This record gives sequence, structure tokens and C-alpha cells, in this order.
Amino acid sequence: MTGSRNDLEIGYDVPAAVGDALKSIQTPALVIDLNAFERNVERMRCHVESMNVRLRAHAKTHKSADIALFQIAKGGACGVCCQKVSEAEALVREGVLDILVSNQVTGPLKIARLARLAGRARIIVCVDDAANVAALSNAAQSAGSTIEVLVEIDCGARRCGVQPGAPAADLARSIAASPNLVFSGLQAYHGSAQHIVDPAERRTAIAAAIEMTRDTLRLLAELGLECAIVGGAGTGSFDMEGGSGVYNELQCGSYIFMDADYGRIRDDSGGVVGGFEHALFVLTSVMSKTTPTRVVCDAGLKALAVDSGLPLIFDRPGITYVAANDEHGKIDDPGNLLAIDDRLFLVPGHCDPTCNLYDWFVGVRDGKVEALWPVTARGKLY
Amino acid sequence: MTGSRNDLEIGYDVPAAVGDALKSIQTPALVIDLNAFERNVERMRCHVESMNVRLRAHAKTHKSADIALFQIAKGGACGVCCQKVSEAEALVREGVLDILVSNQVTGPLKIARLARLAGRARIIVCVDDAANVAALSNAAQSAGSTIEVLVEIDCGARRCGVQPGAPAADLARSIAASPNLVFSGLQAYHGSAQHIVDPAERRTAIAAAIEMTRDTLRLLAELGLECAIVGGAGTGSFDMEGGSGVYNELQCGSYIFMDADYGRIRDDSGGVVGGFEHALFVLTSVMSKTTPTRVVCDAGLKALAVDSGLPLIFDRPGITYVAANDEHGKIDDPGNLLAIDDRLFLVPGHCDPTCNLYDWFVGVRDGKVEALWPVTARGKLY
Repeated sequence: MTGSRNDLEIGYDVPAAVGDALKSIQTPALVIDLNAFERNVERMRCHVESMNVRLRAHAKTHKSADIALFQIAKGGACGVCCQKVSEAEALVREGVLDILVSNQVTGPLKIARLARLAGRARIIVCVDDAANVAALSNAAQSAGSTIEVLVEIDCGARRCGVQPGAPAADLARSIAASPNLVFSGLQAYHGSAQHIVDPAERRTAIAAAIEMTRDTLRLLAELGLECAIVGGAGTGSFDMEGGSGVYNELQCGSYIFMDADYGRIRDDSGGVVGGFEHALFVLTSVMSKTTPTRVVCDAGLKALAVDSGLPLIFDRPGITYVAANDEHGKIDDPGNLLAIDDRLFLVPGHCDPTCNLYDWFVGVRDGKVEALWPVTARGKLY
Repeated sequence: MTGSRNDLEIGYDVPAAVGDALKSIQTPALVIDLNAFERNVERMRCHVESMNVRLRAHAKTHKSADIALFQIAKGGACGVCCQKVSEAEALVREGVLDILVSNQVTGPLKIARLARLAGRARIIVCVDDAANVAALSNAAQSAGSTIEVLVEIDCGARRCGVQPGAPAADLARSIAASPNLVFSGLQAYHGSAQHIVDPAERRTAIAAAIEMTRDTLRLLAELGLECAIVGGAGTGSFDMEGGSGVYNELQCGSYIFMDADYGRIRDDSGGVVGGFEHALFVLTSVMSKTTPTRVVCDAGLKALAVDSGLPLIFDRPGITYVAANDEHGKIDDPGNLLAIDDRLFLVPGHCDPTCNLYDWFVGVRDGKVEALWPVTARGKLY
């Protein structure tokens, strides 16, 4: 892991130095509780081992080469997913060499970059369009590389993906017949279902996705098309796909951090799904207090994604984050407990777009800064 | 202006090269229509000139030194505002030398950095706390610099700021009596009022803010405390504060870009406030089309801030952006008009946090890329 970067100016380039006490971290900062993070990584390693499936951890959550390499070295991951070519490029440069771009890649320059990258690492990509298959094949031939390709099916999310069954089989055949492409299986991700709070409703939606996937696999087998990868699932539902006997590669990302939104997803016994715990926080400081019961903190919309709700305040009952402006967070403090410069740990509503706002993760343990990890692929949108 | 950066890899480091056609820009990209942008800058220059007030343009909108310097050189701005010390540091390094940090700066390291910066540029800051005044004075003495200080009053926003009248006067006296600080006036910003869509309601809210400010000024004058700066106002209400005879420095930011939210704010005659036009876009590509009436584009939550609503699609009636996921935007296309790789110009709901997601502005004119401007202070949160 990366450790200290003493050439950078603290407070301008980086929010802290390795060895600093928590109170020295410049706020707002993106902080990882390393003990909780490592426990989450180990929990998922045990889950996939017990279900006898692979984990291809989703790097769109963290965009960090340090974390991706840790998930591969210690967390049972066979590789990672990412969503963009530039994200994959950033991770390959840092030594992450087995990547599924779990998305469609279109446009000539992006396809050419993907094909070149496939000469340096194992690269897998999703398709849902016949013309895109031809463009990928042409680019791989030009680059002298081989790209593995998954057919993405729409198993309920109504987003990308061809229909299960015959349309998927047609696309699989065209991939298998294309020079410099390898047909590697199916992408069957039902993103919205894993956020359904009620476990029975969630199970019903995922069961439908599993059935569509199973039917498509049967049809492909009849055609002699083997699926090395049957991929999908996220932190909210991984036990369902993982235990189905249909999926063999899970694409969970948020399990390492557990944001406020995933914290509301429960298993059948009412526990937090997977037993994961909050490990990612935005550390913020109170910057203004002009009434007894309201304070303003320094983390607003540029420090926190609010698409999945406002952040929770960790371990401070009775204090509530009630509104986010660009650079301000309004906090209700009915007990008049807070003062200027007090610090709070916020649990972001949605971890992925929150991490994308920062240049650095600050890893803390036992009250001290232990690691600074760059958000390697931050802003890599292309 | 910065122009081309040929040492950077197109598609990885930068979304385009100067001279590229629009179709070569890698998406999603943050695009400025330079003609519209320059017209907006000129419109505001005329507005403040006709009202005989200063413009201190808010750089939190764009975080770009190129744009800040253009606003000062051509747009009638006397300087800029920003919200964070690290933002101010980034701009000073690029030659922007008159900056109001229109916010409270707390915590010893941040205050020390601000005091050092005041040795290199004119630095003004807001306060709403007596202990903060003492800390600023001590730091400025240590740095051998002088910091100008505004008393922030709460004129209706219920966020930061002391109460108008006597509490503000008490704080002003303590600033005036503090070594290495200069009392420079009042910060009286009513951020939420300028987003009130109805002009009469907006006028009522701003009129109340103006009265509180006027009363406080009268009290300060009785105490012999001159206000060189009476600052506030934003794009949605600048004509009200600017025409009040009370404010002398307007802090508008979004007028250069006009996002979808400000586009809904109307003046008394029903026109867009200030006559500004949309000049900032997220250029996106269609990446998936698996049904006749729905497509998926490559700009989602990491490419667009959605806190003030989903983006509008520019100049393509009948096509609607209906949902944002992390890296996907779902688009309804009832007329079956769109195909994979088609490009759309999205008007962001909220420009400030959208700009903060990108490393580069791509300035376009006459169908070509004319400029690449770094988002100098992107991610400068501290």
C-alpha cells in the first residue's frame, strides 16, 4: 500500500500525513476505518468461499488501485470490474491486470483504447448490440489483441442489455464467430433489485433474474456455447445470486464501505445484509454556530453525494444532518452539544459518487492516520 | 488562456485536443459554448456598470483560474469569491490576487494557511464568531500579514452569520480593534431567496434582507465603522441587491453558465433573470439502445449533480432524461429518434457541483474545440 507522500503539502494537496492524529486531518476528508474495512473484506471472502463462487469486486465503488490490489491479494477477488475505459486504463497502469468493463464501450476512440489495453491485461467487456460486436472485433484485430466479451441481458433492470433467450443467443453466436473476440458468458445484473429493502420482495425480483439467466444458459448450452462467466449481483443481494447455482462470479462493490443506503437493506433475520459494517466516513468540522440548536459543518454537496439521501451522523444520537448546500451542511443539535471545530463522522448516503469527489482516502486505525491512498481513477469518466 | 496541452493523452487525461471537431470529444465531457459564455460575461458587466456596483464574481461555480482571470480582465469583476482556503490557494498560484473567502475559516492549520496567503494576495474572509476573530488576528500577526474581515449577518438564510444590528456591531468593533485585521464591511447573502421562482415572493424575501443590512449599516456608521464592502447577492436576485443603494459588491457566480435551476428563475416580465443563456453542457453519447423508445447514455451521477433536479436535454424536444444511475442516464425517446453513438447536450440541474466532477472544461466555438481549461480548484475542499 502507498503510505506516506511527504512531497505533498498537507492541507492543500493532501488532507493529512501518515502518523497524524485524527484531529489533525483537514476537513472535509474521506476517511476509512481500516479495521472495519478489513473485516468487511474478510466477511465477503468467507461468503464467496462458502458459496463456491468467484468474487470480481467492483472498483467503481472506490476507484483505487491500492484497494483493488488488496481485494485481490487478501479478499478472495479474482479481479475487478470497472465501468469506463479510462478507469480500466488507470487501474492497469497500477498493476490491476484482470478487469471486466461491466458496461458497453462505444465510439471509435474508446473502442480502440480498449483493444490496446487488452494487449496489456485480461480485458472483458459487455455488449448488447451487434454492430458493437463488429467494431470491437475490428479494433482487436488492428491492435493484435483479444477481448473477452459477455452478452449483457436485461434481467429486470430495464436499462442496458438484450432480452434473455434467443436475442442473447444470437449475439453470443456473433461474438463466437468474430476474429479476436472470445465469447466468455453472460452479464446479468439487476441493479435496482438489490436496493429493495424488504427481503421477500428483493428475493422475488432476484429470483426472476435468476430464472431468465438460467433459461438463457440452457439455450446457449444447446448451441454449444459455454459460459465461463455468469456475472452479476451486488452487495444488497449477493447471497441470492451466489446461492443460485446459476451465477459463478459476483460483482459486489459497496460491501467494503457500507453506505447509509445499503445499511437500510436487511436480510431475512432483520440483520444488515452480509453482516457488513460502516467503514467509510466523511470527516467534517463544525464551522459556524450562531444559535444554540443549529450548527453548520464544512461538508456539503461537493463533499457528499446526496442522490440516495442525506448522510447519517455516526455514533452521535440526537444530532441530525438536515440540509446540504454546496459547501455547507446544516445540522440540528437540539441538545446544544456541538461547538465550533467539533468533528463529526458522516456516513454518506451513497459511497460510489462520494468517493469520486475526493483525491485521497485517509486510512485510520487506533486514532491515527495509517495510510493515504489516491483515488486512482477519480474523474475517469471517458 | 491555456489552450492546447499536447503532452496529455486524449481520451485518458483530456477529453479532446484543441482543433478537434465536436464529434471527436470523448464523452461525458464538460463543454462551454464560448459564444454564449462570453455574451453572459458581457451582460453581467453591463448590469453592474449600469447599477454602479462592483462585481466580485463567485469562483466556486467554475473553480477555474482561466475563467476568473477572464472575468477580471473582460467581465468587469474587481476580484473573485471562493469558499475554501485551498480554493483560494489554487487561484492565487495562477495569478488571481483579490479573493474573498465568503465563508468562515476555522481550525488552526486552515487559519494559518489563510494568514500566509494574505501575504501574497488581497485576502478577505467572513466571520460570525468572536473567538474566530482572535484566532485570525493571532495567525496574521504570526504570518506578518493583514487579513480583511467581513462580519457575516444572517439576513434570512438561517445558515451562518450573526444576527443583524447589535451582535454584528459588537463583532465589527472587535475586528477593528484586532491587530493585523481590517474591518472591511458586511457579508449579507441570502442564498435560498434567489432561488424563489416567483419574482414577487423573491422580491419580498430580498427586501427583508436589504432592510436588515441597511439597519446594521446605520448602526455601524453611528459607531464610526465604515463598510468598504457590503457584499452578497447571486444570479437569481442580483438586480434587487444591486439596485438597493445598500449593497456595493455583488457575488454572482452561475450567470456565466446558467444551469437548469437558474433557468427557471424569472424576472417581472417573465424573462430569464438577467437575460442569461445556457452556456455549460455535459456532452454525452448514447451507449445502449435495446428498445425503440429508451436509450441509455454515458452520463450519470458521476458526470452530473442531480441535487437540483435531473438535466434538461438541450434543443431536442420530445427527448427526456428520466433517471441517473452511477454511470448511466436513462432517456425516454418516444419518437425513436436516437441511435447508439448519437450525442446530446445536457443542461445540468446545478452547475457548481457538476463542474467540480471534471478535470477540464472544453471550450467550443463554431463546431470546434477552441480551448481546454483545467478546473484548477477541483476537489479543493479543505
